[in-house]
Amino acid sequence: MTTAKSDPTFRPERQREVAEALRAVLPPSSVLSDLEDTRPYECDGLSAYRQPPMVVALPDCERQVIAVLDVCRRLNVPIVPRGAGTGLSGGAMPIADGVVLSTARLNQIVRMDAYSRTAVVQPGVRNLAISEAAAPHALYYAPDPSSQIACTIGGNVAENSGGVHCLKYGLTVHNVLRVRMVTIDGEVVELGGEALDAPGLDLLAAFIGSEGMLGIVTEVTVKLVPKPASARVIMASFDDVVTGGNAVARVIAAGIIPAGLEMMDRTSSRMVEPFVKAGYDTDAAAILLCEADGTAEEVDEEIARMTAVLEAAGASAIQVSQSEAERLRFWSGRKNAFPAAGRISPDYYCMDGTIPRKHLARVLTGIAQMEGRHGLRCANVFHAGDGNLHPLILFDANRPDELERAEAFGAEILALCVEVGGTITGEHGVGIEKIDSMCVQFTAAELEAFFGVKRAFDPPMLLNPNKAIPTLNRCAEFGKMRVSAGLLAHPDLPRF
Amino acid sequence: MTTAKSDPTFRPERQREVAEALRAVLPPSSVLSDLEDTRPYECDGLSAYRQPPMVVALPDCERQVIAVLDVCRRLNVPIVPRGAGTGLSGGAMPIADGVVLSTARLNQIVRMDAYSRTAVVQPGVRNLAISEAAAPHALYYAPDPSSQIACTIGGNVAENSGGVHCLKYGLTVHNVLRVRMVTIDGEVVELGGEALDAPGLDLLAAFIGSEGMLGIVTEVTVKLVPKPASARVIMASFDDVVTGGNAVARVIAAGIIPAGLEMMDRTSSRMVEPFVKAGYDTDAAAILLCEADGTAEEVDEEIARMTAVLEAAGASAIQVSQSEAERLRFWSGRKNAFPAAGRISPDYYCMDGTIPRKHLARVLTGIAQMEGRHGLRCANVFHAGDGNLHPLILFDANRPDELERAEAFGAEILALCVEVGGTITGEHGVGIEKIDSMCVQFTAAELEAFFGVKRAFDPPMLLNPNKAIPTLNRCAEFGKMRVSAGLLAHPDLPRF
Repeated sequence: MTTAKSDPTFRPERQREVAEALRAVLPPSSVLSDLEDTRPYECDGLSAYRQPPMVVALPDCERQVIAVLDVCRRLNVPIVPRGAGTGLSGGAMPIADGVVLSTARLNQIVRMDAYSRTAVVQPGVRNLAISEAAAPHALYYAPDPSSQIACTIGGNVAENSGGVHCLKYGLTVHNVLRVRMVTIDGEVVELGGEALDAPGLDLLAAFIGSEGMLGIVTEVTVKLVPKPASARVIMASFDDVVTGGNAVARVIAAGIIPAGLEMMDRTSSRMVEPFVKAGYDTDAAAILLCEADGTAEEVDEEIARMTAVLEAAGASAIQVSQSEAERLRFWSGRKNAFPAAGRISPDYYCMDGTIPRKHLARVLTGIAQMEGRHGLRCANVFHAGDGNLHPLILFDANRPDELERAEAFGAEILALCVEVGGTITGEHGVGIEKIDSMCVQFTAAELEAFFGVKRAFDPPMLLNPNKAIPTLNRCAEFGKMRVSAGLLAHPDLPRF
Repeated sequence: MTTAKSDPTFRPERQREVAEALRAVLPPSSVLSDLEDTRPYECDGLSAYRQPPMVVALPDCERQVIAVLDVCRRLNVPIVPRGAGTGLSGGAMPIADGVVLSTARLNQIVRMDAYSRTAVVQPGVRNLAISEAAAPHALYYAPDPSSQIACTIGGNVAENSGGVHCLKYGLTVHNVLRVRMVTIDGEVVELGGEALDAPGLDLLAAFIGSEGMLGIVTEVTVKLVPKPASARVIMASFDDVVTGGNAVARVIAAGIIPAGLEMMDRTSSRMVEPFVKAGYDTDAAAILLCEADGTAEEVDEEIARMTAVLEAAGASAIQVSQSEAERLRFWSGRKNAFPAAGRISPDYYCMDGTIPRKHLARVLTGIAQMEGRHGLRCANVFHAGDGNLHPLILFDANRPDELERAEAFGAEILALCVEVGGTITGEHGVGIEKIDSMCVQFTAAELEAFFGVKRAFDPPMLLNPNKAIPTLNRCAEFGKMRVSAGLLAHPDLPRF
């Protein structure tokens, strides 16, 4: 663990200069620079990497956000934006000589409009707080990352967060109508709007998931959706994972969009069952959880259709929740998979790849073969409906080699995801964790297009530098740059 | 009308130079430079503006697209990409000393995958041809601009086209999964993918609707959706437009997403009825058409729910189509509104603004007041469900002042759309027609963000220049620049 005091790059006079400049424009209590105050910001959910920031700024309005950016631009200080710090890829990992800009005090619900089914909120508002405020109108905000009690809408925008419901209701990008943000130049820019389409370039989608690299969000307009009157879940067993994977594709091919469609393999269900007693079929090679929501009649009809498809797809057993308590019990196993992994294995490495649904069976077979090659077990838990895999590689960091083998195993899973036309992250972002895998995912021309947009928004490259998008130099060092035909024809392409 | 020969900027030696350079890399029949050959390309659907291009290039594969771009970049020739030329805002309007790059010969359906419900097509494939090719699998491509017989998917991507079905099924941006394109540097870049989410910046949405300014599409992966088994439409009458406008909002607020939700005012229905005999209630101040599609049971249930909502919202009469012939007859009036306008008025000016649905009644009232002020009639026809208005301003260009009054009327409608939080275009794009209205829509900082992205993709600014996004100079001359607080603080912002 690195601390600010022991960091060779730590310069107390620089810290004093930046903190004083910030205290000139913010209330004194909104600028933290003592190590005891900055330490809580030393990491996010990717806790293997820690680094206290030089200074933490806590603006409480847009004017103060502009003031912080003005100071940082003038003094050439890098800025790491931070919501609740629940991210899993190190996107909010501080920089030793940088400022963390926390949105914690930008926490107002500005407007709740039941008629147009929208809410306008500041970035520091918690995901679940939006749904709580919308509940009196029988509305809610659909994307539900598992951290939704704590995570903020600003962080969701930065990471384009998903959740169990995103198959039916979409990711953050499908549920945000407008973002108001401040660029590094201190300009206020609004992206998107409440109308269906907008002229000009649609930069809202590019901004969502940009991991704090393009600007600081000061306001978000989200869509709200009606709370379904009821929900029931099917638990189906399969004798092999390939049949289970194909069943997922057949549900979707039948024109059904379940409210949730999750899969667990036997390693996962056996890992979880003793811990949560969800009533899982631990003999099945794979379990599928399929949820229907809507009016009671819609739910009955969809449960009947899904049951027929799953039977035809070769399910060996099918159970349907008969009460809300049973529905929650069926889900409890899935939701506790990560803590359960911690119970049976000293360490685990949670992957987050996304693949086209039709390749589910192929990727599962590939992972099973990798288990043998790397000599490690892997529990497969995933948002099957949208092809978002969370393989949990189980290892013991105290045994020689195991961490290295787990990392190699993980990299091989991600490479397979890319090979079948998928991506290296589903909902956890790139941050610092996946940055080298981006070299596998994209060609130099594609990375150059990303940097072109980055430079257009942030010419001094001060916003969350060295996250999310690798430089071509970094990829060259990593040794796995994808090369396009175009690049070969243009060896003089600018390098970073 | 300007012709190449009489154009003072026309330089025969330059034309020869560019045509010869292109003939060195394309088959001779793929390069047109004689005026009789280039004249068919002199305008798109916005036929008031005409200009034959210097040269037309018709590449038939990606390699040839790269070759055309290489020549144009080397010789510094602006490029106007063109699909079928059905656009209504002049996006494909040629430049006197430029090349038109036609995608007409990039017309192959590369792959049709019924299992993953996707099709991979070249940009010159017609919109309707995709649905025809998908029909044997009971699938179709949902966005249906009224030009769908002729318009190409490449043009749909450039304009982010919509249609009657886009309320339920989304615009082009919601139905395209991946675009493969060539940048001005000759680099092949893929945006998006078949997986739900992608790391890096989501530039697919920014590319869709970018009106040919960022690159040349060479391949598009589209989503296909199941063909509904049946469809029926409700025709509801209202005694005043405000009640009709509010009824639209109430249908949506009831959680119903009709397959189509269109509105016409009395001026429109009286204009259309003698011409098509659709059986419209010409006494009603407004008519609403609400379509349900799906299985027969789903359609019956949704028709019943919509009927109840429309009655509660104050409909004075309700009719439901009892046969497919009647359904088509109800729609025929709506679909023939534009030709009918040409029948009762020497000229008409078709607007295309989009507003938040909740402001429908307010904007309709505003337009009625403008009719008096400008001394012109306006027939209101619109995609009410998504707040996309097509007011048809009726005028006679041969009468003194009327064209000017029609243009002033149109500009006032668009300004009102922006005022209530809407936009200056719903589905027809900006092109050359709406470019000055962009100054009203966006602040300098927002236009600067657009140009930043434009420069990142096209540093020499050769792709479709002077379309879609106005320079700050142009806005200053237009005299209606929106000014943000941020801009005032930064008077030294770069100008174009």
